[in-house]
Amino acid sequence: MPKITFLPAGVTVEIPEGETVIRAAMKAGIHINASCGGAGVCGKCRVFLEGGEVEGEPLPEGGYKACTLIPKSDLVIRVPVESEVDRRALLRPAKKVASSWLEARGPAKVSISPVMQKIHLSLEPPSIENNMPDLARLETGILKELSAEEIDINWKLLRKLPYVLREKNFDVTACVFKKNTPRLLDVVPGDTTSRHFAIAVDIGTTTICAELVDLNSGNVIGSTSDYNPQISYGEDVISRIEFARKKDGLKILHERVVECIAKLSQELCGKHGVKPEEIAHYSFAGNTVMSHFLLMLEPRFLRESPYVPVAAKFPVVPAKELGLPAGDQTITTLAPCVASYVGGDITAGVVATGMAKESPLTLFIDIGTNGEIVVGNQDFLACAACSAGPAFEGGGIKHGMRATTGAIEAVHIDPETLEPMILTIGNKKPKGICGSGIISLLASLFIEGIIDQSGKYRRDLDNPRIREGREGYEYVLVWAEESATGEDIVFTEADIDNLIRAKGAMFSGYQTLLESVGLEIGMVERVILAGNFGSFLDLEQAIIIGLLPDLPRENFYFVGNSSLLGARMAALSQEALAEMEQVAQMMTHFELSAHPGYMDYYVSALFLPHTNLDLFPSVKELLQKE
Amino acid sequence: MPKITFLPAGVTVEIPEGETVIRAAMKAGIHINASCGGAGVCGKCRVFLEGGEVEGEPLPEGGYKACTLIPKSDLVIRVPVESEVDRRALLRPAKKVASSWLEARGPAKVSISPVMQKIHLSLEPPSIENNMPDLARLETGILKELSAEEIDINWKLLRKLPYVLREKNFDVTACVFKKNTPRLLDVVPGDTTSRHFAIAVDIGTTTICAELVDLNSGNVIGSTSDYNPQISYGEDVISRIEFARKKDGLKILHERVVECIAKLSQELCGKHGVKPEEIAHYSFAGNTVMSHFLLMLEPRFLRESPYVPVAAKFPVVPAKELGLPAGDQTITTLAPCVASYVGGDITAGVVATGMAKESPLTLFIDIGTNGEIVVGNQDFLACAACSAGPAFEGGGIKHGMRATTGAIEAVHIDPETLEPMILTIGNKKPKGICGSGIISLLASLFIEGIIDQSGKYRRDLDNPRIREGREGYEYVLVWAEESATGEDIVFTEADIDNLIRAKGAMFSGYQTLLESVGLEIGMVERVILAGNFGSFLDLEQAIIIGLLPDLPRENFYFVGNSSLLGARMAALSQEALAEMEQVAQMMTHFELSAHPGYMDYYVSALFLPHTNLDLFPSVKELLQKE
Repeated sequence: MPKITFLPAGVTVEIPEGETVIRAAMKAGIHINASCGGAGVCGKCRVFLEGGEVEGEPLPEGGYKACTLIPKSDLVIRVPVESEVDRRALLRPAKKVASSWLEARGPAKVSISPVMQKIHLSLEPPSIENNMPDLARLETGILKELSAEEIDINWKLLRKLPYVLREKNFDVTACVFKKNTPRLLDVVPGDTTSRHFAIAVDIGTTTICAELVDLNSGNVIGSTSDYNPQISYGEDVISRIEFARKKDGLKILHERVVECIAKLSQELCGKHGVKPEEIAHYSFAGNTVMSHFLLMLEPRFLRESPYVPVAAKFPVVPAKELGLPAGDQTITTLAPCVASYVGGDITAGVVATGMAKESPLTLFIDIGTNGEIVVGNQDFLACAACSAGPAFEGGGIKHGMRATTGAIEAVHIDPETLEPMILTIGNKKPKGICGSGIISLLASLFIEGIIDQSGKYRRDLDNPRIREGREGYEYVLVWAEESATGEDIVFTEADIDNLIRAKGAMFSGYQTLLESVGLEIGMVERVILAGNFGSFLDLEQAIIIGLLPDLPRENFYFVGNSSLLGARMAALSQEALAEMEQVAQMMTHFELSAHPGYMDYYVSALFLPHTNLDLFPSVKELLQKE
Repeated sequence: MPKITFLPAGVTVEIPEGETVIRAAMKAGIHINASCGGAGVCGKCRVFLEGGEVEGEPLPEGGYKACTLIPKSDLVIRVPVESEVDRRALLRPAKKVASSWLEARGPAKVSISPVMQKIHLSLEPPSIENNMPDLARLETGILKELSAEEIDINWKLLRKLPYVLREKNFDVTACVFKKNTPRLLDVVPGDTTSRHFAIAVDIGTTTICAELVDLNSGNVIGSTSDYNPQISYGEDVISRIEFARKKDGLKILHERVVECIAKLSQELCGKHGVKPEEIAHYSFAGNTVMSHFLLMLEPRFLRESPYVPVAAKFPVVPAKELGLPAGDQTITTLAPCVASYVGGDITAGVVATGMAKESPLTLFIDIGTNGEIVVGNQDFLACAACSAGPAFEGGGIKHGMRATTGAIEAVHIDPETLEPMILTIGNKKPKGICGSGIISLLASLFIEGIIDQSGKYRRDLDNPRIREGREGYEYVLVWAEESATGEDIVFTEADIDNLIRAKGAMFSGYQTLLESVGLEIGMVERVILAGNFGSFLDLEQAIIIGLLPDLPRENFYFVGNSSLLGARMAALSQEALAEMEQVAQMMTHFELSAHPGYMDYYVSALFLPHTNLDLFPSVKELLQKE
């Protein structure tokens, strides 16, 4: 990784091979004006090369565009900005994202012993001395392997059993489901144990992610994902529950998600030469609403008080009955849910992190429209859902958008000129602002003093970028001529309001949940950020706006798609599957709004970072320095 | 019941109301010539009334036709025969049939606790204080009722669960299958526990008998039966197994039997106002081949050495998957088999008698094409199949026929004139001879000295009824002019040979099986005759020909259709269902032909009653008296 030293600040950062200098600057906290998102068109991001080899476009007036400049060696770069700003950059803690939980310590340890087991048996062929029935012969062999006393059987297997047994002279492979009383689900001629796969699936409200897993090695052979096609019927779970009330609505939502999973499964199988009948197990994890849609269960009572799911622990379902590409024996399992708004994705995530088997007090946070939080350790687990609203996903934000190409993902604002430095996903002309960009923008506006603690623009700033629009004061992040849409991209006070309410809901959630179990924020020893969101989150910025608690940065981890990881573990390990049920069982669910102190906590959190600055000592210190 | 005294013999018997005098005579062992089977047309059965009131046809020359004479009070009847014959009649033990096992002691005692249980639950409706999921709420209620810890569930129930629970404000009835881990099969609104039924079915090779059983009271509400439609594809199991090898043969046999059961079920339900979804359980018992056909399992290996069934213990099968009139929850169970030729009908029969729970050493005999025998008590059970052939069902007998209208069911022969006295089923002109008639005829011919111990006709008898036919010597039982067919009904030496081989197979079976477990015939304390055959069997005659062992007559019982009775008990009682599995498990099966002494036993049994007359002391005594 090349090292880049920025002058005059004298800050050095490393960036991955092939990354641009402007991204290095953003990472180092060095401001460079850049309003085209890295697309190379605005030409504002001029820097001068003082040492090293580069690839990039020299500007006619000298220097290079930082957004196209790629290091070929370590570099020294001089940024043409007032020293004032650079000095201030030095006062700030280095940009920091949470460490990877998986790189730091790997997923929770489980042995590979799938609940779907293939057993190869070389049975003794029948003789006059031993003419026990085909089924009894097979059962005896299996029970010996399993050290079990009893096995259930799918009766339809009996029809093919005599032929299967005799095809290779009583050399067969049995496929057994090992929960409760074991159940014989299939038997085929010869030894097929080397071909034993599962598909693990995280069914997100927005995205469906699937992995093809080798149940012998435990390896992930391939993975893929797609948008959840239910999006066409509603962006969030509430609007989809509404759609489900229409005639055939539930059926449509059910069919769409099954079709999508089937497509992802076919894609994985096709690419890796796996036949559908070689898939033993579909292991799903999704929130409670997604789980209901997958099985086509009435979701209506999930959103009507008293918020009752049809089921939270789901029975095993034959994959063929759901219409998935599968053999007759293929099963599906769903991670158990805890309540209407704390679903199987959270249970799976908790199991994936192993936090329920360890002593440190851990706060597990999944930020999203419905933020879910879990606190606990090996001794207890408590959880709650926060109605954060869709702001962090760009919803309810005037120019908010999902994290796709052209979305502004990082922002820095020059405190003097108020000129922004923006980076977009894919280095394309900006279309709008995604979640991480929104947090970045809000933190920048606040830390540079452009907005106050209540999220209002300072009225005394005489700058074309701050203006009174039709919906009140706003900041112009991108001028129309530099945006992909041909319109100004702005950030309004209403947007800020939405964001403050969203982060307030999350933060008061942590406080209320911790208080419910007699604890407080300072006692938390580890914070695990689940979901895609967590992996891109700039920790400092998230703490500055009060979205995350102000705890030592080294105690923050992102775990990525822990729901998918938990689903994979459930396919790989009977132990993990059982642990999911235990976790769901032991997790105490708190209805935050029912807590007497909740409203006070919430209202106090409607400031940046918080009404009580003592809860955010590092932010307090920073504000005092600025 | 009117008493009838026959003179000059001075023998008195009781007969049921409405029964004819000729049947009373047959029962008393009084010979009256009668060759029209009781149809009233031959006019040979003249008797004189010496006392009492009668209804009947006086003959012009005086007296009455015994076959039309019905007592209106106790009677004294004089039979115009030589005193010689009558005196001999007195020497014989009274005609005796086995006592009814069920009348003597009832079926085995079991508590009414069906494996399919309906549980009425008034659940607490959800509230904010108790918003557990619908499924968990229901499960908690059921588990409390069952004192169980875990319950499986048919996942498809989840789709209707929220509506069912809310239809009557969480007042529901659950239908639970109680084996192993209990399984929730259905849930419906309100209290439906009073409507809880089962269909018990005995699937015989020839006849299918079905009963509608009330699972609350244990009462049989109705019963019906029909011929097994598979008869069209083969009279016996072997020819049906052959047919099953043809293209679609197995499918056809399967479909025919299912259709027939469906028809019988519809008939019972229609007649007694029961809806198919109110049937919780189809409880089947049948021999191993019938069980294979019912589930459409390959029967081929049953008849090829080493005679291996696909299964002997059958999994539970949803009734709808078999195509029976039923609800989604309705299950079917099959009585477990022991071996290829000792089936679930025998297991069910043993359980129905309770012999496996008592100390007396009991011999359980089911006489048929494949005679099955079981010996044992509470300590052990051993069983074997005897290839008796179809002779006792009229098969392989020149004028043999099934026991339907017009079949000769009882025969007596005048030792002087060799004139027969015959009775037919339904008092119709004779068409042929059924099983009981064949035994009766063989015993008569033997005891009157018309055939010798090896079953050959005495060559020195000058009588038109004994003649040399195309197939050797034969006895003319009915002349052409008095038969329904317009042909002589005869009984050939080849017929006798077949019968001797059949009874020899049975008797040597008892001996071999008993010897296999270190016992002998004299040790047997009870003989239970299963099947229809047993109920009509004349004990003396069956012992005279050596079909049954010569044991005290009071130790013989007939139990009727014990297979059906066992099937009914399995529906009514979880305990009986479990006992069937235990009985099948503990029953040691002996392959008679594999026993070193079997051939000797068999050959010794090819005499009347046996080569070793000491095995038949009462017959020996009788022969000496004659």
